[in-house]
Amino acid sequence: MTRVRRDLRAAVFEANRALVESGLVRETFGNVSGVDRQAGLFLIKPSGVPYDRMTREMLVPVSLETGEVLDGKLRPSSDTPTHLEMYRAFACGGIAHTHSAYATAFAQARRPLVCMGTTHADYFHGDVPVTRPLTQEEVAGAYERNTGLVIVETFRAPGPNPGDVPGVLVANHGPFTWGADAMAAVEYARVLEYLAQVELARVGLAPDAPRPADYLIDRHYLRKHGSDAYYGQP
Amino acid sequence: MTRVRRDLRAAVFEANRALVESGLVRETFGNVSGVDRQAGLFLIKPSGVPYDRMTREMLVPVSLETGEVLDGKLRPSSDTPTHLEMYRAFACGGIAHTHSAYATAFAQARRPLVCMGTTHADYFHGDVPVTRPLTQEEVAGAYERNTGLVIVETFRAPGPNPGDVPGVLVANHGPFTWGADAMAAVEYARVLEYLAQVELARVGLAPDAPRPADYLIDRHYLRKHGSDAYYGQP
Amino acid sequence: MTRVRRDLRAAVFEANRALVESGLVRETFGNVSGVDRQAGLFLIKPSGVPYDRMTREMLVPVSLETGEVLDGKLRPSSDTPTHLEMYRAFACGGIAHTHSAYATAFAQARRPLVCMGTTHADYFHGDVPVTRPLTQEEVAGAYERNTGLVIVETFRAPGPNPGDVPGVLVANHGPFTWGADAMAAVEYARVLEYLAQVELARVGLAPDAPRPADYLIDRHYLRKHGSDAYYGQP
Amino acid sequence: MTRVRRDLRAAVFEANRALVESGLVRETFGNVSGVDRQAGLFLIKPSGVPYDRMTREMLVPVSLETGEVLDGKLRPSSDTPTHLEMYRAFACGGIAHTHSAYATAFAQARRPLVCMGTTHADYFHGDVPVTRPLTQEEVAGAYERNTGLVIVETFRAPGPNPGDVPGVLVANHGPFTWGADAMAAVEYARVLEYLAQVELARVGLAPDAPRPADYLIDRHYLRKHGSDAYYGQP
Repeated sequence: MTRVRRDLRAAVFEANRALVESGLVRETFGNVSGVDRQAGLFLIKPSGVPYDRMTREMLVPVSLETGEVLDGKLRPSSDTPTHLEMYRAFACGGIAHTHSAYATAFAQARRPLVCMGTTHADYFHGDVPVTRPLTQEEVAGAYERNTGLVIVETFRAPGPNPGDVPGVLVANHGPFTWGADAMAAVEYARVLEYLAQVELARVGLAPDAPRPADYLIDRHYLRKHGSDAYYGQP
Repeated sequence: MTRVRRDLRAAVFEANRALVESGLVRETFGNVSGVDRQAGLFLIKPSGVPYDRMTREMLVPVSLETGEVLDGKLRPSSDTPTHLEMYRAFACGGIAHTHSAYATAFAQARRPLVCMGTTHADYFHGDVPVTRPLTQEEVAGAYERNTGLVIVETFRAPGPNPGDVPGVLVANHGPFTWGADAMAAVEYARVLEYLAQVELARVGLAPDAPRPADYLIDRHYLRKHGSDAYYGQP
Repeated sequence: MTRVRRDLRAAVFEANRALVESGLVRETFGNVSGVDRQAGLFLIKPSGVPYDRMTREMLVPVSLETGEVLDGKLRPSSDTPTHLEMYRAFACGGIAHTHSAYATAFAQARRPLVCMGTTHADYFHGDVPVTRPLTQEEVAGAYERNTGLVIVETFRAPGPNPGDVPGVLVANHGPFTWGADAMAAVEYARVLEYLAQVELARVGLAPDAPRPADYLIDRHYLRKHGSDAYYGQP
Repeated sequence: MTRVRRDLRAAVFEANRALVESGLVRETFGNVSGVDRQAGLFLIKPSGVPYDRMTREMLVPVSLETGEVLDGKLRPSSDTPTHLEMYRAFACGGIAHTHSAYATAFAQARRPLVCMGTTHADYFHGDVPVTRPLTQEEVAGAYERNTGLVIVETFRAPGPNPGDVPGVLVANHGPFTWGADAMAAVEYARVLEYLAQVELARVGLAPDAPRPADYLIDRHYLRKHGSDAYYGQP
């Protein structure tokens, strides 16, 4: 039997609960995972289990190497192969997926979430991109794995750096976000939804409003991130 | 006195409560029913009774054959003849009717709820249609029954299959949804409202956005429905 | 000292609480009143008192004949002269005034709330009108009284009948609604806000959508109102 | 050690709590401060501390003269230099800053919040302006201080009077509001967000709606403010 770190189990469970409390998920949509790279596994929500019946023992450990379930009787989230490809390519500790209304509207509009202000810049250093649509072959084949691969492709040069822009809109599907751990991924999911709500209103008010200057965006991002950050407590 | 199965009474009562908790109903609008085809009856909410004063004994049993009230002193929902015609034509176990804000806006706009993403495809295999308006004769006559008949007409070929698309927008009125039982019908009502909210935002962002490819929609629908489904637990 | 019926005091107090619980008021905006025509007075919320500190003894009795405060130490709502003129002209038992967001947006757009569906017809038999703007003289003079007079003017022929359309949007101000008693007025205020939300969405989806046929609207209104009503319990 | 008035500490703490309860802040965005001009200091929220872990002892006293922290171990909000410049120029007792969704959308659209009705006039005597964007030099230099200076510049003649219009939209950033004390500043923040919500809907309904007459706006503002006010209790 695989040994899953207790703190990882607790953290991923708390993050799944935070996702529900955020109001970002409906029905059984959405999932959060967290990774233990040393142990070579990640923990993810079981598939189709209502959030209010989920216990931390139901979280499913999945091998980072093989993608196989390492333990337990429950199927992992059907989006598990997407998470797997993202963990392989991105240096993150947690991933969240929601169908939150405003971010999903951007995904269905195939419209990137443009950086129009400092709140966006505090979290995402640049526009949150939309993936290209999957081809018929990609959908007919290993669909969920290919979703992960197309996300990874979106962040290949000249695309954004996944460390600077920890979120993506999968075309006609919905948002994925990631962060240092599962809870950070959920925080990015909450902020992404808020930004999408603000941006929808902005489009209604001034569809051709000028973008803020790069120097403003850089300043805000760097006051929260990197070695010269001065936001928060030391 | 008619014998109503206790589990049906409990299920329809719980579904009416779930409808209220979902925030989909206002005032005394909306109703849920559930059918027992073996007993030849369905149970429905009484007309105009506030949800917080409704008890499970107040639910009204109605004959599937004659449409007559089988028991009790309360009038059934004024929409009862609509439910009756739907039960006669559709192989479903429960029906929900709401005036939820976004879905009603689509009904008032006489605009079908187009399938623009995977969340839609997870529940409805195709666009949710709008009925044609009723004629003056249909409204002057058995109005509520004719509402049911025009719903049924909307799903006649070449219209969608009511098993694949368990929802409809009655023109200038509001949504009806159905499912395997009363609670499933309420779940479809919740999802329909969410999809309408997302689609309204999508229209504001990109009115001419391309539709997702059919192969994506089919894949999502079939991963949750039918013999090859692999979503959820076995 | 004026004798105020205890049941009126209780009813107006409960209606003011219902207004707060409905989420229709912000800060100290909004007020509800109820009338006792036999006693020749109406009771109204005191001016500028936060809802959570208001007791039923704080409600202010006002003379229907003179418009003067009949009892108590508190000033009545600054909108009292508006209520007074409405009670004099309309055969209603209660009046509610809110600054609810969507209805206020219609008032600021000077756009009537057009009847686009059966939910509207269940409550308002026709479009909810917007008043003409007040003239400079009307604003400089007895402003609140003139607001009442311009409401009354809006319902003079060929305007709608205030019994059939118990609500109005005061241009660049907000909605007033009325009904058989104070609580009914609040119910109309809630429904008006809901209808405005739906109609805003409808405008975004199909700005030129056709109106529903009159025969549908009449049918819905008459199934809830008048001698042939068959909605609710006998 | 600096002596901070206990009532100021309590008032600023309560105002920060009211900000959270209003739903105007997300994550750790937003802050409220209150000033003691006699003591030459203002109290402000610490930087990056989650609201639910903040105690009143964590509030940071800052010198009005030097802008330096007078006491305690925590860093003040990174927006502290903005508050400082505002206190120096405006005769107010409290300042609130949020990233509330609708007001932020106006800031990102660089669109002033136009006065379209009496609710606006009850609180803001004229349009709520948008600042000019900061120059590259202003952002590269003392960014937060320059944000305060550009706010102050916006209210220099022929701009509005900061006593009549106690709010501003910082371009591509968000709203600041102020008032007689910290709690009043929060009230203005709540009202500003509500007005932005209404105005967004109004733009969707009638983009070219006429503005209300000045005499209506003046009347409403003056019935709540100034020596002839007659709203509320004497």
